[in-house]
Amino acid sequence: MSEAGSASDTSTDVPEDVYVVFTPSGRRGFVPPGTTVLDAARALGVDLDSVCGGRSMCGRCQIQLSEGEFAKFQITSRAEAISPATKSELRYADKRGLKPGRRLGCNAQVLAHCVIDIPPESQVHRQVVRKRAEVRDIEIRPVTHLHYVEVREPDLHDQSSDFRRLCECLREQWPNWGIADDISCDYAVLTTLQKALREGAWKVTVALREGNRVVGVWPGFRERIYGLAVDIGSTTMSGHLCDLATGKVLSSAGTMNPQIRFGEDLMSRVSYVMMNPGGEEEMTRVVREAVNYLATQTAAEIGAGSDEIVDLVFVGNPVMHHLMLGIDPTELGGAPFALTVDTAVELTAAELDLYLHPGARVYALPCIAGHVGADTAAVVLSETPYKNDEITLIVDVGTNAEIVLGNRDHLLACSSPTGPAFEGAQISSGQRAAPGAIERVRIDPATLEPSFQIIGSDRWSDEEGFEESAEEIGGISGICGSGIIEAIGEMFLAGMITTDGVIDRSLAEKSDRIFADGRTFSYRLSETVSVTQTDVRSIQLAKAALYAGARLLMDRRGVDAVDRVVLAGAFGSHIDPKYAMVLGMIPDCDLANVTSVGNAAGTGARIALLNGQARREIEWVVRTIEKVETAVEPRFQEHFVGAMALPHKTDPYARLRAAVKLPEPRSLTGGDGEGGGRRRRRRG
Amino acid sequence: MSEAGSASDTSTDVPEDVYVVFTPSGRRGFVPPGTTVLDAARALGVDLDSVCGGRSMCGRCQIQLSEGEFAKFQITSRAEAISPATKSELRYADKRGLKPGRRLGCNAQVLAHCVIDIPPESQVHRQVVRKRAEVRDIEIRPVTHLHYVEVREPDLHDQSSDFRRLCECLREQWPNWGIADDISCDYAVLTTLQKALREGAWKVTVALREGNRVVGVWPGFRERIYGLAVDIGSTTMSGHLCDLATGKVLSSAGTMNPQIRFGEDLMSRVSYVMMNPGGEEEMTRVVREAVNYLATQTAAEIGAGSDEIVDLVFVGNPVMHHLMLGIDPTELGGAPFALTVDTAVELTAAELDLYLHPGARVYALPCIAGHVGADTAAVVLSETPYKNDEITLIVDVGTNAEIVLGNRDHLLACSSPTGPAFEGAQISSGQRAAPGAIERVRIDPATLEPSFQIIGSDRWSDEEGFEESAEEIGGISGICGSGIIEAIGEMFLAGMITTDGVIDRSLAEKSDRIFADGRTFSYRLSETVSVTQTDVRSIQLAKAALYAGARLLMDRRGVDAVDRVVLAGAFGSHIDPKYAMVLGMIPDCDLANVTSVGNAAGTGARIALLNGQARREIEWVVRTIEKVETAVEPRFQEHFVGAMALPHKTDPYARLRAAVKLPEPRSLTGGDGEGGGRRRRRRG
Repeated sequence: MSEAGSASDTSTDVPEDVYVVFTPSGRRGFVPPGTTVLDAARALGVDLDSVCGGRSMCGRCQIQLSEGEFAKFQITSRAEAISPATKSELRYADKRGLKPGRRLGCNAQVLAHCVIDIPPESQVHRQVVRKRAEVRDIEIRPVTHLHYVEVREPDLHDQSSDFRRLCECLREQWPNWGIADDISCDYAVLTTLQKALREGAWKVTVALREGNRVVGVWPGFRERIYGLAVDIGSTTMSGHLCDLATGKVLSSAGTMNPQIRFGEDLMSRVSYVMMNPGGEEEMTRVVREAVNYLATQTAAEIGAGSDEIVDLVFVGNPVMHHLMLGIDPTELGGAPFALTVDTAVELTAAELDLYLHPGARVYALPCIAGHVGADTAAVVLSETPYKNDEITLIVDVGTNAEIVLGNRDHLLACSSPTGPAFEGAQISSGQRAAPGAIERVRIDPATLEPSFQIIGSDRWSDEEGFEESAEEIGGISGICGSGIIEAIGEMFLAGMITTDGVIDRSLAEKSDRIFADGRTFSYRLSETVSVTQTDVRSIQLAKAALYAGARLLMDRRGVDAVDRVVLAGAFGSHIDPKYAMVLGMIPDCDLANVTSVGNAAGTGARIALLNGQARREIEWVVRTIEKVETAVEPRFQEHFVGAMALPHKTDPYARLRAAVKLPEPRSLTGGDGEGGGRRRRRRG
Repeated sequence: MSEAGSASDTSTDVPEDVYVVFTPSGRRGFVPPGTTVLDAARALGVDLDSVCGGRSMCGRCQIQLSEGEFAKFQITSRAEAISPATKSELRYADKRGLKPGRRLGCNAQVLAHCVIDIPPESQVHRQVVRKRAEVRDIEIRPVTHLHYVEVREPDLHDQSSDFRRLCECLREQWPNWGIADDISCDYAVLTTLQKALREGAWKVTVALREGNRVVGVWPGFRERIYGLAVDIGSTTMSGHLCDLATGKVLSSAGTMNPQIRFGEDLMSRVSYVMMNPGGEEEMTRVVREAVNYLATQTAAEIGAGSDEIVDLVFVGNPVMHHLMLGIDPTELGGAPFALTVDTAVELTAAELDLYLHPGARVYALPCIAGHVGADTAAVVLSETPYKNDEITLIVDVGTNAEIVLGNRDHLLACSSPTGPAFEGAQISSGQRAAPGAIERVRIDPATLEPSFQIIGSDRWSDEEGFEESAEEIGGISGICGSGIIEAIGEMFLAGMITTDGVIDRSLAEKSDRIFADGRTFSYRLSETVSVTQTDVRSIQLAKAALYAGARLLMDRRGVDAVDRVVLAGAFGSHIDPKYAMVLGMIPDCDLANVTSVGNAAGTGARIALLNGQARREIEWVVRTIEKVETAVEPRFQEHFVGAMALPHKTDPYARLRAAVKLPEPRSLTGGDGEGGGRRRRRRG
């Protein structure tokens, strides 16, 4: 019999069973009248949440009757189709509030054909909506779920153990939840179960991991458990505390990576280990302490304890990843850069000296290669290039640039040795992105006069009140990574820099901002900050490395262009894509398809925290990524040389040229960009 | 084509492949000539061991060519059918010895049709032969197996991690060994893998658990790992160290259970916990210390360290089991005697504070019920009543008697409150089984004169030299459990005790060994040791409880007789089955089918240690055992009353009577055994 036909037939025949349609899923079927909406939903495979298992306690199963004629389903859904509010519901509404029209699915009984709507927040696998159009929402499928259980008391006629009765009642009271026949439990649960059951008068809440392992038991009813997503950067670390059921970020905290005292950058930390036997243990200890700090801090912010955190996911580059795991990073400091482990790692929090819930687990996303870490894997999970047809280029810019390229057919990854210039290091007036640093630059091509913005003030330097606002934050202190990129980009667009990166000395006659600085020329942005020829050269080297890495992957992938460019990382979110492309940092692409995605690694960590399937997904993707080592690719050098020019020696950058007026290629030396410095010196 | 036909056809046609028959398995098939015997065996599914993976190092794969005509297989197996000894084999033979005719299976190549014999010690799943006819040999299928691996070195062209290369090489070098595609590893392995690989110059030995988890990695070649089977008794504890590959017991050690200082018996220890909060932690600590002692001691005896033990199995009664696991045993001290856990428990050794190999696991057999522990489960595993058609009754005699009854169709278990009389406690001259204790008694029915043996002397008391040998060990110190049973049994057979258990005062006239002792009469065995009326009563109460428990299970099982009786436990091994039956401790049965099996719990622990499948087997069996609580069974009381008489009020004990001349039933009171004491007092 057809669904709709039977529904309309039976509705006139006073049927035994009633027809229920759930929206938005569209799942439908017959249930005996008097069935609770929660039971009907579980029986029909509809995604309706519950922690208390239908005891009017958690309010997670809220639903709403949709009244009216539903021609599509051939039924009329009337208010009388569900039973009136019960005392328990009224008590719940009094105590915790219930929106008009909302009912507790565990109390409302289906009495006649009806359409019932499950609001998003009542779905087990609810979504966390992400704002950007090009990424999917996060589906919440936490690894650990809370289940309230009323356990049968022991008696002489039933000699089963506390644990067996707990498991039996769990399965009985949570049918259709996919709970395993064979449940195991943590050692900590074993030693505390007896007490918890008696303290809770045989009512407990169980944290069940993957439907088959009890990792926590609390006396009585408990509604929330937390997870922490941690991004371990070389410089800074951040943690986001999430409600594992709703996926909401409840609080966030950041801290400096305390390993900084052993070395500013990764390689100096690896050197520290090489020079100081046992140094890796020290670094492991301090980074774990910092993670403990993030856990305590984020939990305290919502009035919780870090022992309420049952799941933690961390990401980091290979050195951070290995140090957090207590693995000596020395091998990562030299060829062949062998990782100890490149599979995902799952451990107990206790094994990593993290003071979370005794049953807490830690999940580390897999590293991709010796220079391409779990942080890049997390970016891939967040951006899902492996789900799309379009060719995506992901660039995570830092001391090394991690580059991922491809689409659903095939992904490749490599790391490119850009050096720290993009972070403002090795730049004459360079500094970290901090108040007082120049971050935006515009140059009038006619007068060669600059205007700029500094971090901490929203005025441009040629606007009124700029000087006052700059003084408030201690004046102009230098230029940060995004600032130097814009400055050089604007200098190039204004014709001050040639295709091969030489500051044109002849313009010194036109503007005193261009001045001789030893044997080369510099451009003065402000009284204290200038862009020198060496600065330009540093950026050229860095951007050439980045471009060459991307180009190498494009070669291997057999494509000439990319459809989308994603700039990840804190620095990526400050770069104006236009200038990145004017300098030729990234291959030619429609500017509209170049996106800065900020801390995508952190987002990826959060996705893995909230969705167990996403973990399997990224593990599989990472295994299939083709790892390319630039150091052994002869073409890398070739691409590097070509990429020294602005924007590129041979790449026409046609799409950029259509959007931005680029100067005609010109050279003061007649040669190519390579060795320009040496030639210049000869000329100087 | 038929095997034999093709074999003979191809043998005349100079075949491409040669036909190999392995004995004793009978497995056979074709392999390309030049295949090593080891490869041929693995390819044909023949059980041939190896640790080094075919590198002439371990000598585990020894085989022997069987020469001659094999009509059955239609082939002639000649010496030339396998390649001559290699240099590696000669080196091995020089260094470690090789019996005549033996070859290393990894060196010998099959060149022509042949029959190859795999000696028992070369089988992976070799058997440990048990002497008793009624039990199966132990098949060795250890959970953890050693694999020597030569790992590919990392290079820039292969960016896979150390762990991934290890797993890949493991699978490549150990094909057909059922190694999982998805291997995980312990945290301790993760942090030491890098070093082990480099220290071993990329050659390591891996301990692989269940074919899918690396729990240990040693640089270079390693041949042996150990397991420890521990029996935690209330009074004594014992440990047997086994070679996990051969199953051999390499050393054993015993120690007192240090918990004795908190109470002699189980209930006094539970009381200690009730009276002293935190007392359970103290008891857990000391019992774990004792297990550590057993590990250290047994390992030291073979010149090894306890950190070479990778697997430990323990058994014990419910209170010992829970205390070892760190679970408060208080609930086991009172109704409803709820166990916290009755599934098997697998943990890391570290979780139980055991200082074994970092990857060592601990397996605790499941408890059956609140009074029927993992030790009884181990006895069941050792005796396998669930594999037989005959109805077996297993009795583990101690302070409580654990009773298991049934066959392959159905097993039942209960515990019966016998009290400690069988252990010599609550007996006027009673003592533990120790030097000086009377353990064997005979009484001349004509003269009523006794003769006896004491522990520590093999002379009977009426033999010459007895007094001297008794003096050497400090004289006669008392009577132990088996002694009191024989004494009362002999007194009954000599007509000194009536059916209802009264010592016949009228015999005082016949022998001065029977003397008035207050209001009742006693029998003097020696100058210092007598059997009093109260002693008889204590044994009657104990044996009635035991019989009633067994009878209750027989009722539930619907049988009137048992085919076999197994007496387990240290005490069981000292009881003479004849006297046990004369007293009516156990139901009537052919005496030939009553066996004392000694420490079957220890044997069961050893089986679980050596065979992973046995663990699954006993877990399943324990789940299916019907648990009977005597306290809530009305018929228990009824059976108990009937069983107070000697051997029983109504049970005719026909089979016993056919073998032993029993006195005719008689009573001095005319009533039944119940309340005999009171009636006697009225008469006295």
